[in-house]
Amino acid sequence: MSRSFGVALLGAGRMGMEHARTLLGIAEARVLAVADPNLQAAEAARLLLRAEKTYPDPEEAIHHPGVEAVVIATPTDTHARYIELSALAGKAIFCEKPVAKELGETRRVLEVVEQKGVPFQIGFQRRYDPPYAQAKRKIEAGEIGPVEQFIAVMRDPAPPPLEYLRTSGGLFVDMAIHDIDCARFLVGEVEEVQAWGAVRVDPRIGEVGDVDTTNLSLRFANGVLGVIQNSRRAVYGYDVRTEVFGARGKLVMDATPKTPLWQYGSGISADHYHFFMDRFKEAYRLELEAFFRSLSQGVAPTPGPRDALESLRIAVAATRSLREGRVVRLSEVV
Amino acid sequence: MSRSFGVALLGAGRMGMEHARTLLGIAEARVLAVADPNLQAAEAARLLLRAEKTYPDPEEAIHHPGVEAVVIATPTDTHARYIELSALAGKAIFCEKPVAKELGETRRVLEVVEQKGVPFQIGFQRRYDPPYAQAKRKIEAGEIGPVEQFIAVMRDPAPPPLEYLRTSGGLFVDMAIHDIDCARFLVGEVEEVQAWGAVRVDPRIGEVGDVDTTNLSLRFANGVLGVIQNSRRAVYGYDVRTEVFGARGKLVMDATPKTPLWQYGSGISADHYHFFMDRFKEAYRLELEAFFRSLSQGVAPTPGPRDALESLRIAVAATRSLREGRVVRLSEVV
Amino acid sequence: MSRSFGVALLGAGRMGMEHARTLLGIAEARVLAVADPNLQAAEAARLLLRAEKTYPDPEEAIHHPGVEAVVIATPTDTHARYIELSALAGKAIFCEKPVAKELGETRRVLEVVEQKGVPFQIGFQRRYDPPYAQAKRKIEAGEIGPVEQFIAVMRDPAPPPLEYLRTSGGLFVDMAIHDIDCARFLVGEVEEVQAWGAVRVDPRIGEVGDVDTTNLSLRFANGVLGVIQNSRRAVYGYDVRTEVFGARGKLVMDATPKTPLWQYGSGISADHYHFFMDRFKEAYRLELEAFFRSLSQGVAPTPGPRDALESLRIAVAATRSLREGRVVRLSEVV
Amino acid sequence: MSRSFGVALLGAGRMGMEHARTLLGIAEARVLAVADPNLQAAEAARLLLRAEKTYPDPEEAIHHPGVEAVVIATPTDTHARYIELSALAGKAIFCEKPVAKELGETRRVLEVVEQKGVPFQIGFQRRYDPPYAQAKRKIEAGEIGPVEQFIAVMRDPAPPPLEYLRTSGGLFVDMAIHDIDCARFLVGEVEEVQAWGAVRVDPRIGEVGDVDTTNLSLRFANGVLGVIQNSRRAVYGYDVRTEVFGARGKLVMDATPKTPLWQYGSGISADHYHFFMDRFKEAYRLELEAFFRSLSQGVAPTPGPRDALESLRIAVAATRSLREGRVVRLSEVV
Repeated sequence: MSRSFGVALLGAGRMGMEHARTLLGIAEARVLAVADPNLQAAEAARLLLRAEKTYPDPEEAIHHPGVEAVVIATPTDTHARYIELSALAGKAIFCEKPVAKELGETRRVLEVVEQKGVPFQIGFQRRYDPPYAQAKRKIEAGEIGPVEQFIAVMRDPAPPPLEYLRTSGGLFVDMAIHDIDCARFLVGEVEEVQAWGAVRVDPRIGEVGDVDTTNLSLRFANGVLGVIQNSRRAVYGYDVRTEVFGARGKLVMDATPKTPLWQYGSGISADHYHFFMDRFKEAYRLELEAFFRSLSQGVAPTPGPRDALESLRIAVAATRSLREGRVVRLSEVV
Repeated sequence: MSRSFGVALLGAGRMGMEHARTLLGIAEARVLAVADPNLQAAEAARLLLRAEKTYPDPEEAIHHPGVEAVVIATPTDTHARYIELSALAGKAIFCEKPVAKELGETRRVLEVVEQKGVPFQIGFQRRYDPPYAQAKRKIEAGEIGPVEQFIAVMRDPAPPPLEYLRTSGGLFVDMAIHDIDCARFLVGEVEEVQAWGAVRVDPRIGEVGDVDTTNLSLRFANGVLGVIQNSRRAVYGYDVRTEVFGARGKLVMDATPKTPLWQYGSGISADHYHFFMDRFKEAYRLELEAFFRSLSQGVAPTPGPRDALESLRIAVAATRSLREGRVVRLSEVV
Repeated sequence: MSRSFGVALLGAGRMGMEHARTLLGIAEARVLAVADPNLQAAEAARLLLRAEKTYPDPEEAIHHPGVEAVVIATPTDTHARYIELSALAGKAIFCEKPVAKELGETRRVLEVVEQKGVPFQIGFQRRYDPPYAQAKRKIEAGEIGPVEQFIAVMRDPAPPPLEYLRTSGGLFVDMAIHDIDCARFLVGEVEEVQAWGAVRVDPRIGEVGDVDTTNLSLRFANGVLGVIQNSRRAVYGYDVRTEVFGARGKLVMDATPKTPLWQYGSGISADHYHFFMDRFKEAYRLELEAFFRSLSQGVAPTPGPRDALESLRIAVAATRSLREGRVVRLSEVV
Repeated sequence: MSRSFGVALLGAGRMGMEHARTLLGIAEARVLAVADPNLQAAEAARLLLRAEKTYPDPEEAIHHPGVEAVVIATPTDTHARYIELSALAGKAIFCEKPVAKELGETRRVLEVVEQKGVPFQIGFQRRYDPPYAQAKRKIEAGEIGPVEQFIAVMRDPAPPPLEYLRTSGGLFVDMAIHDIDCARFLVGEVEEVQAWGAVRVDPRIGEVGDVDTTNLSLRFANGVLGVIQNSRRAVYGYDVRTEVFGARGKLVMDATPKTPLWQYGSGISADHYHFFMDRFKEAYRLELEAFFRSLSQGVAPTPGPRDALESLRIAVAATRSLREGRVVRLSEVV
C-alpha cells in the first residue's frame, strides 16, 4: 500500500465539505487538521474526517504537526495568501481556482511556489471530468486529426450576488476562465482574443462595471479559431457544452439530461442539471484523487502553476479587449 | 379548388430536378415549359412534369404562352439576368439563392422586381425546415423570452472545386449566408460584425483568395450577441446546428442522426447526414409549396427581396471585416 | 429511360391520395384511371395525376384500356375482391394490407394470384422504412451476429371507432400484424406464440370481443425469443420501437422525436409523432417506388403473397392463443 | 448531529469494498469491525474505515462490542446464516440480495428477522437509482396515469463461471430477480407468469440445467401486462432498460451512453456501460445511505423482508413455468 500524506483542509464551506467527502475515500490522504473561522463547520468536517484538530485560522492549520499537503477551499480572495504561506512552509498545495484575480499577484505567488519547489495543482476540475478527459485522450491519439475549430458554451443558472460581482474581477476572470482553461487543455495556447459583451440579464450588473452576456473569439497559436459564449443566467439550469472539430472528426461534450429518465406525455422530456457541483461531482472527486496520486508517485500534479497563470492571462486579455473594443494579442498581457 | 399557375422551370440540373419533383405534387402549379441548355436534361424534366415544351434558352421559356411564374434553378451567375427578364415580363419569381454575388447587381435587380411589383421569393430554404420554422413560432410566441445569444454552425462535407471558389464571392457570401439569413430570421437585424478566417482545409483555397474556416461574431440591433462558425470540410458529413438562447429558455436545432437506427457494438453508433439536400429535403419541398400558396392567396411570398438584400449585406460586411481585420458596422455597407 | 406502366388507382381516400402523390413522382407509373365511389375524391386524384378517367366502381377501372398494374387502397373488406379481379385480368397488384381478415379467404385469393402468375406486393410498408431496411441489411451482413432476442412495441394514439373494431378481426390481425411481419422480416419464421391480452383502454372494446392491450410472446424457428407489445392508445402519440439483439450487437429502431428541435425550459423537451402516416411517410413512398422498380426490372416484388399469408397465420395463431389461454404452434394454424 | 451506529462489515470483496467506501461518507455509520476470511482484504477495509478490528469469521464480527448494525456482503450462500445470526443478536441488517436461493430457507430466515423485530433491508439497489426512484415518484403522483404495460430488459456483458451457474438457482432467481423486484416496485404485485427460455450463448449453460436467454411474461394483480427479457451476454456491455406505459404517458429509463462524449467520424458514436457496478454506482451509495437514515429516524428500511420474499416467489414461479411449460399462478408458489 502506498504511503499516506498528512493533510490540512483549509475551508469547510460548501466546496470544502465536498473535498472532505472525497478525501475520506483517498487512501493516500489522512486529514489531520481542518480550518474554518466558522468553528461549527470545521468541527463537522473534523468529525467526518476523524481529523485531530480544528483551527479558526488556516495559517495555524498549515503548521499543524505532520501536515504535508494543504487543500485550499477558503474564500477566493484569501487563496493567494494561503498558497504563499503553504509554499513557504514547504507543503504540497491543491487550491481551488483562482490563485488571485490580478495577474501581478498571481505571478508573484506562483513564483514563490516555484522557488520552493512544492507540488501545486489548481482546481480546474473540468480537465478531470470523464468526457473532457476522454476527449483529450482522443485528440492526442489523433482520432479527430488536427483541430480546426472550438466552441464552448457555459451558462450559470443565475448571477451571483451583486456584492460578489463588485470584486469578482469580471465575467472573463471569474467565470469564462473555466472555458478558457478547457480551450488550452484541448486545443493549445491562445494568441489573440476579441471579446464582446452585453448587459442582458440584470442592469445592476452593468452598474457595477461588469457584463453578463459574452462572446469571446479566440485565435490559437496553432491557427485554430474558437469561440466561448457565456451567460450569467440560464433559466433551465447549468449549461455547459464544448465542441472540438478536427480534420478527421468532431467531439461533442454535452451533459444533458441529468437523469436518464424520459417522460412521454405532451412531447418527450427529461430533466437538466441545475448546479455546476452536480454536473462536475465526479470531476471534483477525480481531480483530488489525481493530486494525491501525483504526490504518491512523485510527479508534478496537473494543471499546475503555468496553467493557473496562462488561463488567467487570457481572461485578462479578454477583459481588456472588451473594454477597449479591439483585438488583444496575448503578447500584450504581461 | 384553387386555380393553378402556368410555370416555367429554368434549369434542370440537380436542384432543378428536385424542384421538378416537388412541382409535380403542387396542385397550384402547372409546369408548361422547361429550359436547360442540356436538352436531354430538359426533356427528362418535361416528361416527368408533362410540360408542353423544352427550350435551350431560359429567356424563351419565360415567354412561353401561359407562363405566370418562373422557378429559377440555373447556374448562380445567371440568376440576376433571369430575375430581371422575368420581372420585366411580369412573372412571379422563385429563385435559388443568391440573386447575385455583388451587392450593386443585387440591389439593381431587386429594384426592377419592386418596380414591376411581381411576387418574389428567394431560396433560403432553411426558413421552411420544420425545426427552424417551429423555432421561429416558439420565439415569436415568447416561449424562450427575449433572445440573448445565438450560435450557428454549418460545415460542408467537402470544399467545392477550386474553379467554383475562384468566382464564388468568398465563404461568407457563398456559404455563411444561409446561417446569416437564419440569424436574421430567428433573431433580427445585425448591426455589426467581426470576421476571423483561416485556411485549414486546403492551401489552394488560400491561393484563390478565400478562407475555409471561419468565425463570425454578430452584434444584433436588439443587443443580442451571436456567432456563426463555418468550415468547408467535415469528414463526417454535412453539419448544421443552431442554438437560440433566451431569458426563459433555449432552442436547439440539431439534425443528427440521419436514420433513427442505433447500433450497439463497440459502443453505440448511428449515421449522419452527408449532403445538404438530404438534410433539407423537406425544406426544399415546403418552400416551393409556400411560394405557390402565396401566389394563390395573393400575399407576398417570404423570404422576399429585402431578405435577399439584407442577408447579402451582412455577408459583404463579414468579408470586409475579414479583409480589413476590424469590426464592420452594417451602416458602412451601402 | 425505362418504360412506364399504365396504372389504375383504386380508392382515393386518405391512403389513396398519399399513394397518388407518390405515383406522381414515379417515372415508371402513368395513372390512367382512378376509382372511388366518392366521385369528387376520384376527380381530385384524377386532376392531380392527369389521369384519363374516373370510375365509381373499381372493377371498371381495372379494365380501363392500357391498365397494367393496380394500386389498391379501397376499404379493407374489399381488398380480396379487387385482388382476385385484378389477378384474373392479369394485372400486377400492389395492395394495402391485409388481403383479408380470414385465413381461408386470404389463401384462396392468393392462390388465384399465383395461378395467374401476376406480380403482387402487400403493403407492409415498414420493410421500406429506412431504419428498418438498414437494420435488415446489417443483420444479413452479420453485423450483430446470430439474432437471439427481439422486442417490438407499437401503440396507436387512440383506438379506432367501435364500429371498425367490431369487424376488424381483432388486435392481432388488425394491428399487431405490422410488428409480426417486421419480426419475420428481421428474424425469420415463427414456430409458436403465446398471447396475453387485457381491456385497459376502453371497456366497450371488451364488449365487442376484442382486447386493447397485449403481450405476444414469439418463439422463432431459429430459436430466437421475442415479444410484441401493443396498445390501442398512447396519449403522447404514435409509438413504434423495435430492438433486435444478437450475439455481436444490438439494433434499435426508435423514431423520436419527430422534429429535431430541443427546447430547454423546465427541463429538456421535444415533440413526438402523432400519426403513423407521418412516421412512415417515407416508407409509403419507398414501397411504391420499389413495386414499380420490380415491375420494370421484371423481378418479383416483395413482400409478396407468402408474406401476406404467413404474417396473417401468426396473427391468427396469436388470436387463438389469447382465446384459449395456451401456447399455439404455427403448425396448428392451417 | 444525528447519532451514529456501530457497524460490522461482513465481507471485504468487491462489493464489500464498494460499501466500505460508501460507509466512509455516512455520518450515521461508524464501522467498528470488518470480517473476511481473506485477512489482507479485511485489513485493507479496516484501514480505510479506521475500524477497530478484523475477524476471519463474520459471526465474531457480529458480536464485536458496540456493533448495532451489520452490512452483509459475503458470498451469496452464506447470507441466510449471517442474517439469522445477526437477527438473533438483535442487530439491524443490510444484506446484499438474495437472502437465499430457496424459498423455504428465505421464508424461515425472514421469520426470525420478524420475530426479533430488527430492521432489515435487502440490496435491491435499483430502487435507489435516480431514474428509477424518480419514475416511482412520478407514477405515484399520477403523472402517467394508471399503468398499463411494463417492459424490462437486462443483459449482462458475459455469463458468470459455470461453477457459479451450477448453484446459482437459475437465471430467474439469480439475475431476473432485479427486474422482477423493479416490476413490483413500479407496478405492483404479480399474479401469474409464463417463462420461455433458450440456450443461445453457451451450450454448457444448458448442460448445467440453466438457460441464458429468456422471455418472462407477467400479469400483475392490477391487470397490467408486462415482459422481462434477459440475456447472460451482451457484447456491447451491461444493458438495462425499463419502460412503464400508462394511460397518460410513458416513462423510459435507459442508461446510455456512459460518457456524455459524442464522436463524429464514420457516423456518430459514444461509449456504453460495461459493468453493472458502474451503471449503478450511485444506487449502491444511495441505498446504504437510506438504510442508515432509516435507522436514524427509527423507520423501517425499504425494500424490506416482504420484498425479499415476494420477488423471490416470482422468480421461483418463473423457474417452474419454464420447466413445466405452462402459466404458473403465484398462488401456487408457497
